[in-house]
Amino acid sequence: MPQPVVLPSYQDTVRAEWVDYNGHLRDAFYMLIFSFATDVLIDLIGLPDAVRTARRRSIYTLEAHLNYLHEIKEGAQVRVDMRVLGHDAKRLHLYLEMFSGNHGEPVAAVAFDHDVAARVREFADAHAALPPARFAGRVIGLRAAT
Amino acid sequence: MPQPVVLPSYQDTVRAEWVDYNGHLRDAFYMLIFSFATDVLIDLIGLPDAVRTARRRSIYTLEAHLNYLHEIKEGAQVRVDMRVLGHDAKRLHLYLEMFSGNHGEPVAAVAFDHDVAARVREFADAHAALPPARFAGRVIGLRAAT
Repeated sequence: MPQPVVLPSYQDTVRAEWVDYNGHLRDAFYMLIFSFATDVLIDLIGLPDAVRTARRRSIYTLEAHLNYLHEIKEGAQVRVDMRVLGHDAKRLHLYLEMFSGNHGEPVAAVAFDHDVAARVREFADAHAALPPARFAGRVIGLRAAT
Repeated sequence: MPQPVVLPSYQDTVRAEWVDYNGHLRDAFYMLIFSFATDVLIDLIGLPDAVRTARRRSIYTLEAHLNYLHEIKEGAQVRVDMRVLGHDAKRLHLYLEMFSGNHGEPVAAVAFDHDVAARVREFADAHAALPPARFAGRVIGLRAAT
């Protein structure tokens, strides 16, 4: 019988300095929690600070793709579960999911007001003439990477 | 003759609390700078704090995809240029690029050491049995979104 897979995981609490004026976790601080979680995984694969220093190794992020599913508030307990989706001799493709016991229901979205929509359109029209945006539309995946 | 497009932009300086033990900007704080830049754009389209409060509107991030191209050190001056790639009645697809006058040359990458590679493989093998990772492989784009 296959053993259940226990995923490496990281826990944290949403700090006061991470939330916006509405008391919600700012987008960049989801990424910070994922970054702290990745530090744990890096330790688990045998590259804690001391080893990196001794062997003169370093790990850095090449690419990240975040999907925001729920708002999280100050003080919320969060847990990040991590999977290794792929790897080659020097790269890892990780998949991290954040869970929280106390997020609220998703907030309904409404359309842009007309004046705001008009300004959005002005920017979009002006920017349409520019050369292609180099990294837009990329997919993360080690098999597809060159 | 078409007018040159002046992109909305944001400037900041890499703060001491954003760098790791090597003095390099941590991955999540690139995202924080992009987040601050987006705040500026939100103001420019006519949704500053006061308007959002008065109209009971809110803006939040659905998805973000970051590509890390260079290390940046503490104290570096950075500039973020922003483009609107697409929009619908309530969503914006933005493209942001960060520039810095004083990043160093890219650091050469080396392969994982054998012991580290073995642990990476163990995780990857264990995680291969899991159900598909829901959001892996996604592409950001309003036309493709449903």
